[in-house]
Amino acid sequence: MTYQSDEADAWRSLGSHAERMDAPENHLSFLMAKENRFAECTVTGGGILYDYSRQRVDRDVMASLIGLAKNRGLMQQFLDMTRGKTVNRSENRAALHTAARDFSGREITVNGVDVAAEVRRVREEMREFAHKVHSGSLTGTTGKRFEHVVVIGIGGSYLGTEFVAKALEGAADKGVSLHFLSNVDIDCFGAIARVIDPETTMWIVISKSYTTTETMANARQAETFIRRHNLEPKDHIATVTAKGSPGDDPDNPVLGAFHMFDFIGGRFSVTSAVGGVPLSLYVGYDRFERFLKGAEEMDGHATDADPEENAPLLAALISVWNNNFLGYAANAVIPYSTPLSKLPAHIQQLYMESNGKGVTGDGILLETQSGVIVFGEPGTNAQHSFFQLAHQGRPFPIDFIGVVNPHHGSYTQRSKGVTNHQELWANLIAQPRALAAGKAAPDDPARHFPGNRPSSTIVINDLSPENIGRLLSFYEAKTVFEAFVWDINPFDQFGVELGKTMAGEIRSSMARKNEDPDYRFDGVGEIERAYLDILSKGGV
Amino acid sequence: MTYQSDEADAWRSLGSHAERMDAPENHLSFLMAKENRFAECTVTGGGILYDYSRQRVDRDVMASLIGLAKNRGLMQQFLDMTRGKTVNRSENRAALHTAARDFSGREITVNGVDVAAEVRRVREEMREFAHKVHSGSLTGTTGKRFEHVVVIGIGGSYLGTEFVAKALEGAADKGVSLHFLSNVDIDCFGAIARVIDPETTMWIVISKSYTTTETMANARQAETFIRRHNLEPKDHIATVTAKGSPGDDPDNPVLGAFHMFDFIGGRFSVTSAVGGVPLSLYVGYDRFERFLKGAEEMDGHATDADPEENAPLLAALISVWNNNFLGYAANAVIPYSTPLSKLPAHIQQLYMESNGKGVTGDGILLETQSGVIVFGEPGTNAQHSFFQLAHQGRPFPIDFIGVVNPHHGSYTQRSKGVTNHQELWANLIAQPRALAAGKAAPDDPARHFPGNRPSSTIVINDLSPENIGRLLSFYEAKTVFEAFVWDINPFDQFGVELGKTMAGEIRSSMARKNEDPDYRFDGVGEIERAYLDILSKGGV
Repeated sequence: MTYQSDEADAWRSLGSHAERMDAPENHLSFLMAKENRFAECTVTGGGILYDYSRQRVDRDVMASLIGLAKNRGLMQQFLDMTRGKTVNRSENRAALHTAARDFSGREITVNGVDVAAEVRRVREEMREFAHKVHSGSLTGTTGKRFEHVVVIGIGGSYLGTEFVAKALEGAADKGVSLHFLSNVDIDCFGAIARVIDPETTMWIVISKSYTTTETMANARQAETFIRRHNLEPKDHIATVTAKGSPGDDPDNPVLGAFHMFDFIGGRFSVTSAVGGVPLSLYVGYDRFERFLKGAEEMDGHATDADPEENAPLLAALISVWNNNFLGYAANAVIPYSTPLSKLPAHIQQLYMESNGKGVTGDGILLETQSGVIVFGEPGTNAQHSFFQLAHQGRPFPIDFIGVVNPHHGSYTQRSKGVTNHQELWANLIAQPRALAAGKAAPDDPARHFPGNRPSSTIVINDLSPENIGRLLSFYEAKTVFEAFVWDINPFDQFGVELGKTMAGEIRSSMARKNEDPDYRFDGVGEIERAYLDILSKGGV
Repeated sequence: MTYQSDEADAWRSLGSHAERMDAPENHLSFLMAKENRFAECTVTGGGILYDYSRQRVDRDVMASLIGLAKNRGLMQQFLDMTRGKTVNRSENRAALHTAARDFSGREITVNGVDVAAEVRRVREEMREFAHKVHSGSLTGTTGKRFEHVVVIGIGGSYLGTEFVAKALEGAADKGVSLHFLSNVDIDCFGAIARVIDPETTMWIVISKSYTTTETMANARQAETFIRRHNLEPKDHIATVTAKGSPGDDPDNPVLGAFHMFDFIGGRFSVTSAVGGVPLSLYVGYDRFERFLKGAEEMDGHATDADPEENAPLLAALISVWNNNFLGYAANAVIPYSTPLSKLPAHIQQLYMESNGKGVTGDGILLETQSGVIVFGEPGTNAQHSFFQLAHQGRPFPIDFIGVVNPHHGSYTQRSKGVTNHQELWANLIAQPRALAAGKAAPDDPARHFPGNRPSSTIVINDLSPENIGRLLSFYEAKTVFEAFVWDINPFDQFGVELGKTMAGEIRSSMARKNEDPDYRFDGVGEIERAYLDILSKGGV
């Protein structure tokens, strides 16, 4: 990383703070006990509460972090991103996922084109499409209403939509079941094929280039499956793809082709047609739009709020602090809400693919670590799974996420004097304290809790579409703010290319063997040949 | 950790090896290229193939690791465990999960009792129970066959069974749907209540003590739900619990009460009645027994094979090497098989709860790190999610898992000349090489792949119940072998107690407020009170 002098100063001063925070008197049990700690370390913005009172920070640390944010111009970089500047420099593109949920009516110009108008057009197409499907005016070959929607897509064309669909499952009142065909594994296809009715199934193929290997392999299986049931692929397939791609070809008609744009990257595309087409079918377009409006509200907060009050910016700065200065290699995301169970997998992708980089945006090798490992499971499940290690093993910071009002709050049977939802919150409240405060047990080392384990808590009021949008946008903004600190490009992913190239070489060997049973896999390495032989002969 | 002198020597020599392996000439691209690398670094045992050819080891490293295993008596400790010695010293118990799948007929004596006979008795009860349910001779209150089974359990009473159930989903031909009610979150209950038919639903409550807070809260919701539908709880609830617990009370009859034993810990209990009752109902008792026999076979391999040929022992030693000597803080588990998608969550619990410890079995503070963070998603999905970071960011070792023959191999439509399953394997073969070999790109740093990123590959021939049992036992044995290296107790979990205690205090405040609306949450900290207020007033 190359720093200007005052940036280097900010980085150095944070290093000194880290040494200071390691001192016993700065153990979290003392930091938490300071008067007004909660009020001082909590911001409410964009419809969520962000509480960093259990992070290993004090006023001086926060002042230095905010100084770093200002030195590095993070707010300006974020604003530039939302205005359509070419922030994805390595691919010479804008990064305008915020435009996907812009309802202001303003122009956003990229290369002389008002992309906001393009986005509005696609939104209108999605609205009409969902209406036609739900009203039964658009059907499959045999005239039956669509009751199953299979989303064929992987990575950025899958995980975000799955997160939102699961979060809004309680609002899925359109008579449509949603299935995700992501993995090229034929057992992924097979499990779905078992439970759907071909006549009432729509397949949505999502790929910007319409060449993604896994997605095309699954689309091909789907076409064969459709035809085998005497149905017409054009009556059962819709696409979400770039304008003019092989999936947007008038000679190859489909139920509908919805455009993706090169200024919205896969892992940031949930609020585009990638999420919009399946989610509109699953929960209705109106709820999808409410979801967008929640995201828009958080975008506004991230853009406009002062650094001291800016929830995703503060979260990003604290994440950098935990990573580069306190030395934590991982961060867990623990939603205390079963409907948010797919949030960790989405954030894992969003964050690790965006920020798992080795070079700056200018191609200079990083001298510091970039992104951490993200993982998580819902609480309280996680407490009964891996929290043993969280409390007494190798420490890692945690994002706790709480939902004030559950979807099924009508079940009020009490146990130990509290409802299930209260029990859930008792744990959400207790765990950050237990991790932070710890407990000395001089005579019983196995029950010694070192404490000083940091966490944040994020609270939304309920599982409304707006709040899911806010949560999504919060993590998107946090992710890019961190990238801006390191000066890396969060929008490219060259790191996945080598594996694809090598898989292509192995695939070619397999294809040749399919044509020529005598082929002996010459030209691949010894280890690779061993595996090709195992697969060919059908066993180890 | 306290070492005898030759153990300290082994540890020191591994430290020297680690420095040596950091030299450029020991980059994995060179190690992999050595002649016979695959044959030398692969063992086949217990029905699986374990390949460590892409780990950062050479003959000298392996010799030192095996020396460590011998110095620390790992094989003897494992044998002691299977013989019923009190290896769980802090709780003064045996750890006999291997007895749950022992079909040898031998006696296994604990405190003068032949526990093998007890285990056989429970197996027989499960067999009969499943038969009665499947034949329709045991029904709910209204005489209808059971078609839904809801497993109420959390942590060790949940994750392993979910893993196996998902793996064997393709064999679920008994007309029974399985649901997991784990989280105390009322939205977990609500989502299940929406999709089941109360008359045809059996609830299996799984808790050794029958006091687990979340499980009891959910059991109470279930009872209320059953009664509200004019059904009798005794006709719809079965239990898996310790003999004489409140769930095994003749005055409170249930469909069946199946015993858990204190010599089998939660996270090791999948092969006991914890997994056995739900899995027998879901896929039939015969398949459950085949699953047990696979696990038994791997247990025999782990017990009997020489260290040099012992797959779980080698995997454990390499894991310690990666952790304590090469400094990797995490390990990913990536099954290239959608039906194995819940394996990572199970191993995350099994490993992190067992090995996330801060003290030795004798209560001495560890001077070295114990277990790492475990996480994972199926491949190829993971490639499109977080593999950017795996290739170019912070490195972490990976367990790749392959299945030679998929369940749905009958779909043979080809894309790019290969079947979906071949495409999957092309990636399974290519990724370890890409991670290990890397690729220099002096003129294009963004496409520079440093390589030298280690992985193992584990192969099973298909998704038969036997192979799922083998895989399960492999990871159980690997987990305890690692614990034996550090001399920690993998069978206790005192680290979860502090959070439970603190949650109890918060719960009491909530319960008091439920009775007395004027109560102001005196006596809890400022931060905790803020959250209690948010929940009481219903929003932030």
